[in-house]
Amino acid sequence: MSDFFIDRLLSAIDRTACPVCVGIDPMLESLPPGVLDRIPRDATGLEASVDAIHDFSSTVLKTVAPHVPVVKFQSAYFEKFQWEGIRAYYSLIQEAKSLGLLVIADVKRGDIASTAAAYAGAHLEDRPGIATMADAITVNPMLGLDTLDPFVQVARKHGKGLFVLVRTSNPGSGRLQDAMLADGRTWSEMLADGVNEIAGSYLGESGWSNIGAVVGATQEHTITSMRKRLPKSIFLLPGYGAQGASADQTRRAFEAGRGAIVSASRSILYAHADKRYAEKFGNNWPKCVEQAVLDMKADLKRVLGG
Amino acid sequence: MSDFFIDRLLSAIDRTACPVCVGIDPMLESLPPGVLDRIPRDATGLEASVDAIHDFSSTVLKTVAPHVPVVKFQSAYFEKFQWEGIRAYYSLIQEAKSLGLLVIADVKRGDIASTAAAYAGAHLEDRPGIATMADAITVNPMLGLDTLDPFVQVARKHGKGLFVLVRTSNPGSGRLQDAMLADGRTWSEMLADGVNEIAGSYLGESGWSNIGAVVGATQEHTITSMRKRLPKSIFLLPGYGAQGASADQTRRAFEAGRGAIVSASRSILYAHADKRYAEKFGNNWPKCVEQAVLDMKADLKRVLGG
Repeated sequence: MSDFFIDRLLSAIDRTACPVCVGIDPMLESLPPGVLDRIPRDATGLEASVDAIHDFSSTVLKTVAPHVPVVKFQSAYFEKFQWEGIRAYYSLIQEAKSLGLLVIADVKRGDIASTAAAYAGAHLEDRPGIATMADAITVNPMLGLDTLDPFVQVARKHGKGLFVLVRTSNPGSGRLQDAMLADGRTWSEMLADGVNEIAGSYLGESGWSNIGAVVGATQEHTITSMRKRLPKSIFLLPGYGAQGASADQTRRAFEAGRGAIVSASRSILYAHADKRYAEKFGNNWPKCVEQAVLDMKADLKRVLGG
Repeated sequence: MSDFFIDRLLSAIDRTACPVCVGIDPMLESLPPGVLDRIPRDATGLEASVDAIHDFSSTVLKTVAPHVPVVKFQSAYFEKFQWEGIRAYYSLIQEAKSLGLLVIADVKRGDIASTAAAYAGAHLEDRPGIATMADAITVNPMLGLDTLDPFVQVARKHGKGLFVLVRTSNPGSGRLQDAMLADGRTWSEMLADGVNEIAGSYLGESGWSNIGAVVGATQEHTITSMRKRLPKSIFLLPGYGAQGASADQTRRAFEAGRGAIVSASRSILYAHADKRYAEKFGNNWPKCVEQAVLDMKADLKRVLGG
């Protein structure tokens, strides 16, 4: 197996014939009734909540592992439950890896110098005997491209990857990220050009870079521009499903079937709340999750061909 | 006492006659020999390390509490030690508050919608019987000004504050943050104008906003521009001491002695490594910390008058 994250990712995508990333965003208020019922009524504090999101996420991992190459843990939903939540977060990362899944930690950290190095230590750096971390993390570059260096150094040392936030999918992202510069580029385009310099310095054996980019799937024209500016970077495309992006919108991130992974969280995790699945599978929520993954795969396959 | 963070902060600054914020950035490799010696030689794993940074930080808090209004916890240095580190982080926040200190959690989180809400829950939202959180947190606005809404909502509900990253102090910050827009503003100036709209909507009784800004103290001309664009926001100025900013450079953030808090971390925490203090106090590292705080206060007083 290659020493580089990007090669492991591409090979896992080929093996599963599927550029889908399942986002593990466990939200207590959205859990299936069957999971919530198991919390004792007299439970107090964080422990019972953490047990519920841990059990739920664990079942989701086992359900999706045969079908997809990679999962993405959103750290906010674990941090919310303080240290108990963080313990579950690391435990689930281990479980995902032991199921053969690649793991992205969606932490969106960004800070300067030794602080960035500490974040890289917390979320990316394997420490023998202590912890095996995610295969890649998301990072926020706003503080400056120099602030990515400590993350790149740790990634390089451990054969891991980064996804740099370049253009996000939320409605208000345009005002800051599409701000027009005096040189005719948008701010995000300028950022992409800077990230591309870094991406070119850390390639896998496949020729693709270990430094990918987060590009919101909800802006078609943006994806086209970004695809040109970051030719060696794989894109992590959030926004499929619950956030409203369609498979058609994601097509421009791909070239010859490669170049992106499409991430979906709520539309898969909480498929039990979707009538289409509830009517078919009743209270069997893992079946709903599995069918939602299979439907998303089919949807993307239709668009991407192959 | 006012229900608003900003009023509590201004009143604490008046009481201590001191706009200094001590940054709690515990780094194992920099701890005083006396603290490190107490880790048993056969200790393994994270626990002994966390005990050391907890004990060190706890002594720092007790040492600086009589002299300064506010401390700032850098979450990266706790996250690095996984859940054990996070447990220490929350425990130290409680301790700081019980010592009468205001607490800023320097988490620099930023994400969209429900994820931002989860981060606000993790770091800002008091949950009776579970945890009392920091009085204010730092947030990263790159994803869009709309992504600040969930943080503002939680802050407003609990009378807390935010410091929005607007212009940072690291050497590489200029390329992204000073990018010149077609309309003649830099990107950070445009961002500041947007943050000012939000700041104006959440004022304290003092007339100052509960939404402050992080502005690197190393660029004098930038501080002047930002002061004009964010007239109601208090600035959190990192970069004093170890990062090279002088008291003179910070002067422009103040008007009539108000408008900013100056943050210093390593120059205070690790004062035992500074010959000036080591020669005077020997192995008594808390004395070194205390003297470094007093010297910083005097330095700022000289510049700010009063």
